[in-house]
Amino acid sequence: MYGYANSKKDLQDRLRRIEGQVRGIQRMVEEDQYCIDILTQVNSVTAALKAVGMGLLDEHVRHCVTESIEQGNGEQKVEELLAAVARFTGR
Amino acid sequence: MYGYANSKKDLQDRLRRIEGQVRGIQRMVEEDQYCIDILTQVNSVTAALKAVGMGLLDEHVRHCVTESIEQGNGEQKVEELLAAVARFTGR
Amino acid sequence: MYGYANSKKDLQDRLRRIEGQVRGIQRMVEEDQYCIDILTQVNSVTAALKAVGMGLLDEHVRHCVTESIEQGNGEQKVEELLAAVARFTGR
Amino acid sequence: MYGYANSKKDLQDRLRRIEGQVRGIQRMVEEDQYCIDILTQVNSVTAALKAVGMGLLDEHVRHCVTESIEQGNGEQKVEELLAAVARFTGR
Repeated sequence: MYGYANSKKDLQDRLRRIEGQVRGIQRMVEEDQYCIDILTQVNSVTAALKAVGMGLLDEHVRHCVTESIEQGNGEQKVEELLAAVARFTGR
Repeated sequence: MYGYANSKKDLQDRLRRIEGQVRGIQRMVEEDQYCIDILTQVNSVTAALKAVGMGLLDEHVRHCVTESIEQGNGEQKVEELLAAVARFTGR
Repeated sequence: MYGYANSKKDLQDRLRRIEGQVRGIQRMVEEDQYCIDILTQVNSVTAALKAVGMGLLDEHVRHCVTESIEQGNGEQKVEELLAAVARFTGR
Repeated sequence: MYGYANSKKDLQDRLRRIEGQVRGIQRMVEEDQYCIDILTQVNSVTAALKAVGMGLLDEHVRHCVTESIEQGNGEQKVEELLAAVARFTGR
């Protein structure tokens, strides 16, 4: 059972909303809407994805990482977490 | 006609690929895949969206902004561009 | 004369403040202050630097880029600007 | 004793280098150097600061957070860590 088990439904809802937003952007491009308006929508999806990522990271630390440290074998999970944070922050 | 007119097909292809990636993430959540693997996919979609945004900005500056400056009324387009860059960089 | 000519004093003031903040962080490390408090200060300096970068970009577009387009040779400046925005947004 | 105790010297060296870079940018502004060249330096300092932040986060998780979880009272440290990561990623 994974970290996000408790928030699985919320996660799916957010992802479905993001999918709908991406389809909305395709429609905007199809209809030749204004570049800056499309860019605004792209930023909005990026922010929604960041929130999903932050949520996953949150549950991961609270559950997977904490449990593996409590069981005395946290080292690999900590390495993995730090690598994920580094990628997530764009470095 | 907007800045991205010449790259409309490429833009639609990228957006369809992004939509597919978002659906893939939903499937990963559905199948209880590992948080960090899902996070890696989220980062990959974020990077793809940033590339779309950068492409839109690129065409916008090369066409819309340049033309309005050439016609002597660039001021509003420049304001708008700078606001868009500020949002795009996350400030 | 460059784009930031009119805001040179403001720019210098901001940079001096940033230099002071960086020295403050060195002091925090020297005094073994708490990691998270130091990280908060690092974030604050990063935000101040982003604001400086955004200010430079702003003046650059309003002056250098606009003038070179008006004079009919904006192409190189536009290329350069887009490359700078791409680096600035971390892509 | 804090997380970064073992890398204190390295941290101070990086911060001194960053301070020197910020002073270098002030000199560039003083000498009216080209906006884009200054922006490139600003980006370089931002990247160096991100690396310092990532280093602090790394030591913090490996030491402070891990130890407090091992001692059975990790909850507050985990909250604090997640808030710090959220700020660090710019959300």
